[in-house]
Amino acid sequence: MIFSSSLLENAVNEFAKLPGIGKKTALRLVLHLIKKDISEVKNFSAAIEKMRAEIKFCSRCHNISDKELCNICSNSSRNHEMICVVENIRDVIAIESTQQYNGIYHVLGGIISPLDGIGPDQLQIDSLISRITIEKPIEIIFALSPNIQGDTTIYYITKKLKGIPVKITTIARGIAFGGELEYADEMTLARSISNRILIENYVR
Amino acid sequence: MIFSSSLLENAVNEFAKLPGIGKKTALRLVLHLIKKDISEVKNFSAAIEKMRAEIKFCSRCHNISDKELCNICSNSSRNHEMICVVENIRDVIAIESTQQYNGIYHVLGGIISPLDGIGPDQLQIDSLISRITIEKPIEIIFALSPNIQGDTTIYYITKKLKGIPVKITTIARGIAFGGELEYADEMTLARSISNRILIENYVR
Repeated sequence: MIFSSSLLENAVNEFAKLPGIGKKTALRLVLHLIKKDISEVKNFSAAIEKMRAEIKFCSRCHNISDKELCNICSNSSRNHEMICVVENIRDVIAIESTQQYNGIYHVLGGIISPLDGIGPDQLQIDSLISRITIEKPIEIIFALSPNIQGDTTIYYITKKLKGIPVKITTIARGIAFGGELEYADEMTLARSISNRILIENYVR
Repeated sequence: MIFSSSLLENAVNEFAKLPGIGKKTALRLVLHLIKKDISEVKNFSAAIEKMRAEIKFCSRCHNISDKELCNICSNSSRNHEMICVVENIRDVIAIESTQQYNGIYHVLGGIISPLDGIGPDQLQIDSLISRITIEKPIEIIFALSPNIQGDTTIYYITKKLKGIPVKITTIARGIAFGGELEYADEMTLARSISNRILIENYVR
């Protein structure tokens, strides 16, 4: 791509560094910003710069935070005896958006994946164990991706927690709402049968 | 989407204002920037802010420019007797990228489209006419989109140029390179036949 302006070229190149944004999309975004008021563009760049400069990670759950403790950990109306273990911040946002969970979180920062070179040491597993030892929660809920890596991570952490009096659960795996039974993979279908849910028991 | 940090939320909302970027994509981009060095993020926001604050439009051809005259208009090695009329800046970049055109440009800022409420007055048509009157180029090449609006714009400008001694041409319309003949629309195919190109003439 040949540009008539180096200002334009620099802006396009910066946008094109973002994941999933090619040169053509970057150009479209930049040409959109050119049409906007200078103040709007300043708000855009300021919000991003401020976010990067001031963002922190919660010292307790490693979620993204404005302060030392995140909004969730510092909220006393939440149930602090229930810790939901998730892979990343996006999962926290997804679960929060359901408005169904009132406990707190622990963000691992990934899952154990030897093929990608991610071992337990690169994750927030030690801090989870020590947190559980100190905070003594009643329940740990694993909300990890339903795959081999997720299962490995659950297995690894569960082993580490042996001897600590805590209830360990994992989110239900089964046929997704709106999903078609015939297209479900065998593993999911098998699990959804073995983890079947009681609707009514008419047996005396 | 519920966020644990207002810094994160602001940055995501700013990204989500861009065309074609939804909340989920915005979050992905912001989480990508969080992982980057502060200096890199500063470069990103500075490039965009500087671009918006300092960008100009060439006073002659209305192309994007760093200065009063764009790099193309101020380049004396280009052929200033040939003006290519395009709809927008993206078209200039596309034609420049072919490295086949050595003339200069005129950016209309759109094409005549009554349905979208765009008339000749909102476009850089008057400035094109006066430019042609003053600069006296040899040729005007229309490189507009091959549709009714493009044809209307060409017709309108051509009428206005009546009496001015200039050659008016339009880019060739035909089957695109790599395109399949059988899938071409009738209009394109008909035009490509009537505008056929001589390969060799063996007739005496």
